[in-house]
Amino acid sequence: MSDNGNRKDWTQLWLEYEGGAGLKDEWEALLRVDLSGFEHDNRVVKSALDELKRAVLLLAGKEQEITAGKEGACLVICRAEDIAAQGFRVRKEGEALILEAPDENGLLYGIFHLIFSARLGKDPGKACGIFEPDAPLRMLNHWDNMDGGIERGYSGRSFFFKDDRFLGSERIRDYVRIVSSVGINGVVINNVNVKDAASWLVTERYYGDLARVGGIFADYGIKLFISINFAAPIELGGLPSADPMDGKVIAWWQETTDRLYDAVPYLGGFLVKADSEGRPGPFTYGRTQADGANMLARCVKPHGGCILWRCFVYNCTQDWRDKKTDRARAGYDNFIDLDGKFDDNVILQIKNGPMDFQIREPVSPLIGGMAKTNQMLEVQIAQEYTGQQIDLCYLIPMFREVLTFKTYCTENGKDTVSDIVCGRAFGNRRSGMCGMTAVCNTGDDACWTGDDLAAANLYGFGRLCFDNSLSPEEIAKEWIGLTFRLGEKNSEKLLEMLLESREVYEKYSAPLGIGWMVNPNFHYGPSVDGYEYSRWGTYHRADHLGLGVDRTDSGTGYVRQYHEPNASMYNNPGTCPQELLLFFHHLPYTFLLPSGKTLIQHIYDTHFEGAQRVLEMQKAWDEMEGEVDRDVFLRVKERFERQRVNAFEWCDQVNSYFYRKSGIPDEAGREIY
Amino acid sequence: MSDNGNRKDWTQLWLEYEGGAGLKDEWEALLRVDLSGFEHDNRVVKSALDELKRAVLLLAGKEQEITAGKEGACLVICRAEDIAAQGFRVRKEGEALILEAPDENGLLYGIFHLIFSARLGKDPGKACGIFEPDAPLRMLNHWDNMDGGIERGYSGRSFFFKDDRFLGSERIRDYVRIVSSVGINGVVINNVNVKDAASWLVTERYYGDLARVGGIFADYGIKLFISINFAAPIELGGLPSADPMDGKVIAWWQETTDRLYDAVPYLGGFLVKADSEGRPGPFTYGRTQADGANMLARCVKPHGGCILWRCFVYNCTQDWRDKKTDRARAGYDNFIDLDGKFDDNVILQIKNGPMDFQIREPVSPLIGGMAKTNQMLEVQIAQEYTGQQIDLCYLIPMFREVLTFKTYCTENGKDTVSDIVCGRAFGNRRSGMCGMTAVCNTGDDACWTGDDLAAANLYGFGRLCFDNSLSPEEIAKEWIGLTFRLGEKNSEKLLEMLLESREVYEKYSAPLGIGWMVNPNFHYGPSVDGYEYSRWGTYHRADHLGLGVDRTDSGTGYVRQYHEPNASMYNNPGTCPQELLLFFHHLPYTFLLPSGKTLIQHIYDTHFEGAQRVLEMQKAWDEMEGEVDRDVFLRVKERFERQRVNAFEWCDQVNSYFYRKSGIPDEAGREIY
Repeated sequence: MSDNGNRKDWTQLWLEYEGGAGLKDEWEALLRVDLSGFEHDNRVVKSALDELKRAVLLLAGKEQEITAGKEGACLVICRAEDIAAQGFRVRKEGEALILEAPDENGLLYGIFHLIFSARLGKDPGKACGIFEPDAPLRMLNHWDNMDGGIERGYSGRSFFFKDDRFLGSERIRDYVRIVSSVGINGVVINNVNVKDAASWLVTERYYGDLARVGGIFADYGIKLFISINFAAPIELGGLPSADPMDGKVIAWWQETTDRLYDAVPYLGGFLVKADSEGRPGPFTYGRTQADGANMLARCVKPHGGCILWRCFVYNCTQDWRDKKTDRARAGYDNFIDLDGKFDDNVILQIKNGPMDFQIREPVSPLIGGMAKTNQMLEVQIAQEYTGQQIDLCYLIPMFREVLTFKTYCTENGKDTVSDIVCGRAFGNRRSGMCGMTAVCNTGDDACWTGDDLAAANLYGFGRLCFDNSLSPEEIAKEWIGLTFRLGEKNSEKLLEMLLESREVYEKYSAPLGIGWMVNPNFHYGPSVDGYEYSRWGTYHRADHLGLGVDRTDSGTGYVRQYHEPNASMYNNPGTCPQELLLFFHHLPYTFLLPSGKTLIQHIYDTHFEGAQRVLEMQKAWDEMEGEVDRDVFLRVKERFERQRVNAFEWCDQVNSYFYRKSGIPDEAGREIY
Repeated sequence: MSDNGNRKDWTQLWLEYEGGAGLKDEWEALLRVDLSGFEHDNRVVKSALDELKRAVLLLAGKEQEITAGKEGACLVICRAEDIAAQGFRVRKEGEALILEAPDENGLLYGIFHLIFSARLGKDPGKACGIFEPDAPLRMLNHWDNMDGGIERGYSGRSFFFKDDRFLGSERIRDYVRIVSSVGINGVVINNVNVKDAASWLVTERYYGDLARVGGIFADYGIKLFISINFAAPIELGGLPSADPMDGKVIAWWQETTDRLYDAVPYLGGFLVKADSEGRPGPFTYGRTQADGANMLARCVKPHGGCILWRCFVYNCTQDWRDKKTDRARAGYDNFIDLDGKFDDNVILQIKNGPMDFQIREPVSPLIGGMAKTNQMLEVQIAQEYTGQQIDLCYLIPMFREVLTFKTYCTENGKDTVSDIVCGRAFGNRRSGMCGMTAVCNTGDDACWTGDDLAAANLYGFGRLCFDNSLSPEEIAKEWIGLTFRLGEKNSEKLLEMLLESREVYEKYSAPLGIGWMVNPNFHYGPSVDGYEYSRWGTYHRADHLGLGVDRTDSGTGYVRQYHEPNASMYNNPGTCPQELLLFFHHLPYTFLLPSGKTLIQHIYDTHFEGAQRVLEMQKAWDEMEGEVDRDVFLRVKERFERQRVNAFEWCDQVNSYFYRKSGIPDEAGREIY
């Protein structure tokens, strides 16, 4: 928890250099730096060099030298234009290491790459290569409210805001160092549900604070974004309307944006949640989502800004009796006809699944549904529905699945989600108007992420954005290596825990893609019928014969939102991936799975097994006592104990619910209540 | 909404005299008063005479005269010792009316009786008779918090407290007039869950306020009670313990109580919720409930005070998997062995049912379970589980059922709940250490009770306490007559609505005594499984074959807490009253009821019928437009609309839930989802 000798109330996560193995001789080159092609006093360059200097000091216990000319063991940093934006190349030339980058961000990422490689004990040779970011935009969305609370936050309070004011710079600076070290280049600092003081972020009340925070961000090549309130012209401007076609409204936004950019030059743009869950939007005025987004896009355009427009638009006052309306359809239905109608500095921000961050969903058909619209993938590392940073749930396997999903949206073979959000599918890579974003899992807890192990998702998300081809295993290994000082056996054990954790959580919670069997409002712990008779469009439709939502041709028709052959694959329970069976089909409890088990037996088995595996994970962690820092050990131990209680509660409630409903006993005769 | 010409923000409920029919000639006697045997300047006598004076002025438009000697048409008030405490007698002697009472409270109630009789258009002859209160203590419990919120309040904010301070006297005075007019003689002003500022009510911080409010109460013969925090010796006194056997703790309470009574002479005593739902109590120190209650009783004894000790003690962290533990048993199990061990100024305050104010419960077996302990019946007119003053639910029929329930606790035939709480069963009538109390339904709403029609429960509770033999119909007629100016047809219609309302609510909500199918926390609206997998001990145990809780000899054994023949009656589904069938028995959906219907068909039928009857009530109210004050009409109309939505939601959710679980279709083929 220390940083250069100054005690802080928080860790430095994977940037905690002290107490490690030091710097091996092979990395002597890092002790001397020769910089050319970059300005020494560029803010990002300075940050990068500072990072290297700090690392060298803490790892090797030596002051770094700045040399002139590449002689002997030194690090030569220079510019190279043949590398994609924000990328870098590492080469060896004799004893020298050569780091080339086309821009300052690339330089910064290259430096962190070298530090990490050294810290992971790699040979410099293994650190060589060309590293170009996959996703042009690699963002974090904070759902921090200005009163200091965090919507769906499980790691304490905001470190950006308190009592409608901005907090000091120290922790923000550490945050920026941490996230930029894994390649994050854009951050939205406030909740998408913009209310109260946050509506005023666009006004002079916060110019000074935004300029200060934007500056800290800029030091590390991160663009600052804010979420805005679509109704601001009414609430702040005193106008009678927020109609995006109204000249007065447009003028208000233009003036507001111009003044804001004058004061806050580093601003990347705005994030907007409109017409969703009670938020205002263009629908109020009979306008389209494109009308709303474009109006704002034109205001930020002169300043090089962009608009991130969320596609989480659905009817949240559905009647549970209505079996025709399907919330899963809503995103696609609301946006598909607008393809090609958005300005080129608008990016649609689309959640990975059509519902809302469940432990298992199919990929949203909106991703790749549109071919002429900038798209950005939104995932959630805040574990709202996936254990709330109490239950261990390493999410990178899920994100990798999403990225590799083949949408069949193009004929050129570049049609995975990764192709789309990295700009390879639709040719918007160069403009940079695509990428990935994650609802962030941080707060002011000492360990940043509630559960120390949840930091793997923060690390992993950044790394995966930068390199979509990294495996969850590679990423977890890096994170473990940088975070802990474990021997091989324990590293392996922790790796196993991380890698199985998502599957374990899935096993003991809602089965086979159906989702939503959570306690309403809180979203932690089971309540099988918790959302079954609600207005949220989230039903499992279980009766005495079976369960699942029929989204096939004979049901809501949702499957047709996918390109072929996906549509046909999902439409048929025989070809639908088993893990999504109940998302797409209403099936009898006696339905036979490929395993030869009935559906109901599968539910029983997976739930017993999931709970059992939590016991094993808990035991594995207990055996790490003495191997990890005592504070960390105890914090994580306490989390595993809570996860154990939660897992057994899930297991017992889900099994009892379906036994009571179906009347079909467990073949193994285990205890169901 | 006016009072003597001064505009107020609230009505006077049934004391609203203006705009009525005036005073008939037959009541001329009220214009002249002759008082003997009472002190003119006694505070209660003064209040009584003021009430009469005000009534005469507003009804007859005349100033009242005070005469000397009973001559002609006058009201002669005198003392008579042959009447039970707080009772009164009315006689005619020629043109004079004679009102006799043994004490000031009796005088006050006699005056209100005359005013009401006159206002209801009765002939004075019909007002004659002897009227002696049944329940010695006739109390209201306010669950008002000192921040101004009301726990389970559905009528606005507190009119006692705001921001940890007492509010002004004007509304409190009106409240006191209103409730004393129906015989209330004790009021607990703060929530039984005593926290924060309310813990300090026993300290000098609030002496002045309590003395002021106690004085207003005393003017109308009402004793002021406060709820106390059993842990006060720790929280306020700085002691390490609140052990009731600890000399320092006893000394702290004695001193605190002595000082409090010195400052607040009108204090009736303390109400205590101990060892319940997280509240501290004697269990913490290995002491019994009697140890705790007696310690406090000895402190208030020298001041003539008493301790009201709640019996709502149960395990609120039950495991839903555990089918042996039965919350219904808890009150009895916790208290029965203590019979005879409580001091004579302790009164056990026992909820009417063993669970918690559901729309249908059996009478608590603790009532009459103990023969040597003072007992008080607690009911709830705050409609927590019974429609929250949105849905109409006239509760007097329920209370009457409870009072007439034969417990078989004595061999002298005086064994109904009424006999017990009125002191006839166990000989504690004379000491006055028994009675009835209601969790109150008032707040600072203009109409006091959220729904104007919910005032019938406030009126009715008081009247029923005073006269246990009054029928719900008589009481409702009085209330309608005093509150509205309706013709016979509309009075009849409103009467019908009130009288059927409890049955209607029961029909569309949880069936046959099982209770609890409500939204957790809020307790309004349906959630069939809302408490099924919770820690609260409130389960319906529905599976694909049937539902209900087996509390018979073969189940939890709860039935044995009743005296015979009740125990055997409940133990057998053939003799168990149908409305309580699922409270006592787990039965198959195909179980045949005496009606010849299956259990499941009964559920379907009652739910459809209940919802349908709400439509009829709504229509009936709509037809009253123009017949009642427009404000009242609109307020109640809005409530009926919300009740309609709620009733259909209940109907559809309950029916769908049981259809989905049982697979048995409705014989009538109505729509179930």
